[in-house]
Amino acid sequence: MTDVWERSWWGWGRADRALSDEECTALGAQLPGLPDAPLPVPRVAGLDLPAPRVAPPPALAHAVTDAPPDRAGHTYGKAYRDVVRALHGDLAAAPDLVAYPRAEQEIADLLDWAGEHRVAVVPYGAGSSVVGGTEYRPGDGDHAGVLSLDLSALGRVLEIDRASRAARVQAGVYGPALEEQLRPAGLTLRHFPQSFEFSTLGGWLATRAGGHYATLHTRIDDFVESLRVLTPVGVNESWRLPGSGAGPSPDRLFLGSEGTLGVITEAWMRLQARPVHKASTAVRFAGFATACEAVRAVAQSGLHPANCRLLDPGEAALSGAGKGEESVLVLGVESAHHPVDGRLAELVALARDHGGAPAADEVRAEDDAVGSWRRAFLRMPYLRDALARMSALTETFETACTWDRAAGLYEAVRTEVGAAVEKVTGAPGMVNCRFTHVYPDGPAMYFTVIAAGRRGSEVAMWDEVKTASLEVLARHRATVTHHHAVGRDHRPAYDRQRPDPFALALRAAKSALDPQGVLNPGVLLGD
Amino acid sequence: MTDVWERSWWGWGRADRALSDEECTALGAQLPGLPDAPLPVPRVAGLDLPAPRVAPPPALAHAVTDAPPDRAGHTYGKAYRDVVRALHGDLAAAPDLVAYPRAEQEIADLLDWAGEHRVAVVPYGAGSSVVGGTEYRPGDGDHAGVLSLDLSALGRVLEIDRASRAARVQAGVYGPALEEQLRPAGLTLRHFPQSFEFSTLGGWLATRAGGHYATLHTRIDDFVESLRVLTPVGVNESWRLPGSGAGPSPDRLFLGSEGTLGVITEAWMRLQARPVHKASTAVRFAGFATACEAVRAVAQSGLHPANCRLLDPGEAALSGAGKGEESVLVLGVESAHHPVDGRLAELVALARDHGGAPAADEVRAEDDAVGSWRRAFLRMPYLRDALARMSALTETFETACTWDRAAGLYEAVRTEVGAAVEKVTGAPGMVNCRFTHVYPDGPAMYFTVIAAGRRGSEVAMWDEVKTASLEVLARHRATVTHHHAVGRDHRPAYDRQRPDPFALALRAAKSALDPQGVLNPGVLLGD
Repeated sequence: MTDVWERSWWGWGRADRALSDEECTALGAQLPGLPDAPLPVPRVAGLDLPAPRVAPPPALAHAVTDAPPDRAGHTYGKAYRDVVRALHGDLAAAPDLVAYPRAEQEIADLLDWAGEHRVAVVPYGAGSSVVGGTEYRPGDGDHAGVLSLDLSALGRVLEIDRASRAARVQAGVYGPALEEQLRPAGLTLRHFPQSFEFSTLGGWLATRAGGHYATLHTRIDDFVESLRVLTPVGVNESWRLPGSGAGPSPDRLFLGSEGTLGVITEAWMRLQARPVHKASTAVRFAGFATACEAVRAVAQSGLHPANCRLLDPGEAALSGAGKGEESVLVLGVESAHHPVDGRLAELVALARDHGGAPAADEVRAEDDAVGSWRRAFLRMPYLRDALARMSALTETFETACTWDRAAGLYEAVRTEVGAAVEKVTGAPGMVNCRFTHVYPDGPAMYFTVIAAGRRGSEVAMWDEVKTASLEVLARHRATVTHHHAVGRDHRPAYDRQRPDPFALALRAAKSALDPQGVLNPGVLLGD
Repeated sequence: MTDVWERSWWGWGRADRALSDEECTALGAQLPGLPDAPLPVPRVAGLDLPAPRVAPPPALAHAVTDAPPDRAGHTYGKAYRDVVRALHGDLAAAPDLVAYPRAEQEIADLLDWAGEHRVAVVPYGAGSSVVGGTEYRPGDGDHAGVLSLDLSALGRVLEIDRASRAARVQAGVYGPALEEQLRPAGLTLRHFPQSFEFSTLGGWLATRAGGHYATLHTRIDDFVESLRVLTPVGVNESWRLPGSGAGPSPDRLFLGSEGTLGVITEAWMRLQARPVHKASTAVRFAGFATACEAVRAVAQSGLHPANCRLLDPGEAALSGAGKGEESVLVLGVESAHHPVDGRLAELVALARDHGGAPAADEVRAEDDAVGSWRRAFLRMPYLRDALARMSALTETFETACTWDRAAGLYEAVRTEVGAAVEKVTGAPGMVNCRFTHVYPDGPAMYFTVIAAGRRGSEVAMWDEVKTASLEVLARHRATVTHHHAVGRDHRPAYDRQRPDPFALALRAAKSALDPQGVLNPGVLLGD
């Protein structure tokens, strides 16, 4: 990264982009029933951190710190419940130590040391987990201490193979720094999760992050050519292959392993030429059910739009794309090689055939609209933090299910999560939905919950709403997560979703790779 | 299947489609140095089968047989070395028993019985393995006996979800029977491996079979919505999901597990509307290296042709598509939804830009050409059997690597495998190559070896050529298999390719799911 900025220790992203007290107050005024003023942001220096229980080995001391700002900044991810706990000055969960290894050998040495001393190791990319993925909790084992293993010093693109369009990349690289290093070669990973600026390649891989494409290759998984993973029993490096049918995929075991099986240190990633042809437009629908059918037709057409984002009426209103009565479908096509206007026209025709009203004047190369949407998208977490400071209750969760169950799930989530919100806050809240990715066999739905909360009860309220959402998803056999990962917060529903024999197999694999049980205990599997 | 035919016990497919003695002799005459007459096909009744060492449990006796024709037909897969051993009357490897369960509970009961009595269980679809996937060998363990578990009685489509375009299908269904059951719904799996007529859904899934599409979704893997797998410790059933990011994919552990972790009994498979728009053409290239560059451009264009098959000069001549001096690229596009001529024109333009000479008069809706190519493709294994009867040496093997290594690998295989052929047969043979599937980061190459062999030494010659091919692939870090699977024949190279920690994890998973070690021992993992 070329510019210098301070990372927020308590909230999202850059400290200098957080909303001011006045902006928080103004935002809170839009939601009746909130306090008059925001929670103050505590200064780390004034907070109680538990004394570190372990000391780093002298030979690795240069790479490890117990300084309070580092420990505070590595205590939580960025879920709502993380932010409000930090705002309330609760740092009881702080790791004892934070390591910033600069070489793979240091990671191996740290793993050896941790295994010997039963110190839990929490691999840490940029800490944007919203599922408790980086927070060691009391029930996670009887470890002597906790080390947060921050990979961000390993941020280089090591090698580019232009012929195969692939690059060997260190796992600690942040999104912008990765793209910056690829740009001179005219290549891009084109993986833009909402967390793009504050997440790392290793984090994307370990959590199967959702990226730019609404169809086809929706998660990072498909862009992996090979992985290099440090496990406590040795280096796991798969061969660079465009496709292999030799046994179960080794890479697919580590994709989604969330730091429990090893530390991903490098990956060969498939890249693309930078797209030069782009077109997008919006199509409006009077009813959400009609819009769903249109999106289904698009998803099953084989036209593979890069963007296919359906906003329900509430979500359209929230994002300024609608007036709260109609659903809005945003379609986008792009290519590095060939014009895409014809493809967009085919998509629009399909949507019109299914009851949509295309906005004819919006059909254009849409750099501006996409850019402003993207800026708003990237701004959203800062607004969430501001709402948290006003003690509003906010939550986002996402899922996926097949088309035959989609309408039922949508209604059930709105009803049941809406009821949970009303129960814990005493008033109705907002439960909106958008489709972030779509597949021929079903959509990925992303729900946003916003309601007036009660100061001091934020975590309890959130937990109750979260429990309701996990319950309705599991009952409908919709996945607990399409791309946010499992972490610790999703464990109850994941335990229901994961087939029992697979749990045995995964536990056995974990024991084989991490015999001392030090890697991110409590995530995916119980103690 | 509607028509009735007898399955060949020694060779490929239908007994009535094998070449006659006269046809074999005529074919052999084209290859100097072969015997004058084909090996006779022995009658099963005249062959020595070892006495069965185990008897089925009385409660399951109705589903199990030790009849010699069943045991003979389940002794081998369909590799060259399998066919010649059968022709020589060698049935020492025959399973003791063959089971034809008609219900999942019978499979569970058989697994229980096998675990109790240490009987090896070899899950069997239609037996088209060319890698020793279904043949228990002496080194595979100290089991009390071997049961071949033939799933072919479980061949029904149980449920179709038209909205999500998916079907719940029993694993024992053969390709044609599957498509026949899907046709009334206007849907298709569109998975057409060369073995289509004589392989099953379960076999495709267990071996990560390669299918119809040359780009994008090249293997069966991506069409899996959920799996139901019977393991010795219980039923593993994943939820039907279009996409999930919840932990490592459970399905991906069983895809490619080749019967070692459980018996796949059902799957929800993603289907497609039957394509109505099709267009294809051929483009000729003076040099193979130039053709490779053109194919790379096509693979990286995002145009996703359904067919993108590059034949090197020898392969083009063998298949009648060329005269032995030029390389031929066959391009095809198809869609159920929109015309594809424009897409084909874009592809052809790309190939022309890279030095190709399109055959303008061949641009057409190509049902005839595709049909006749497909018939020839399906006929190929019968010709291979005829060559085996003439004691010619034949072998096909396939791999994949990234583009930066493709040209080097191609040359190395032709040189080194060619040298091995010459060494064992005393004369040069044919080593041809085609690309069967292509990816943005590299091609999947399929090699065909044909040479005059010596009667009685067929297996020894084949083993030596196989060893040479495995060696050159491994040294170039090209996968041991893109879609033929590992089985027992590919174990030496697979053991080099598979990362060591992953081997530990897989072994641990195997022990957890199959604690008695009865499931297809010797495949993927050692005893």
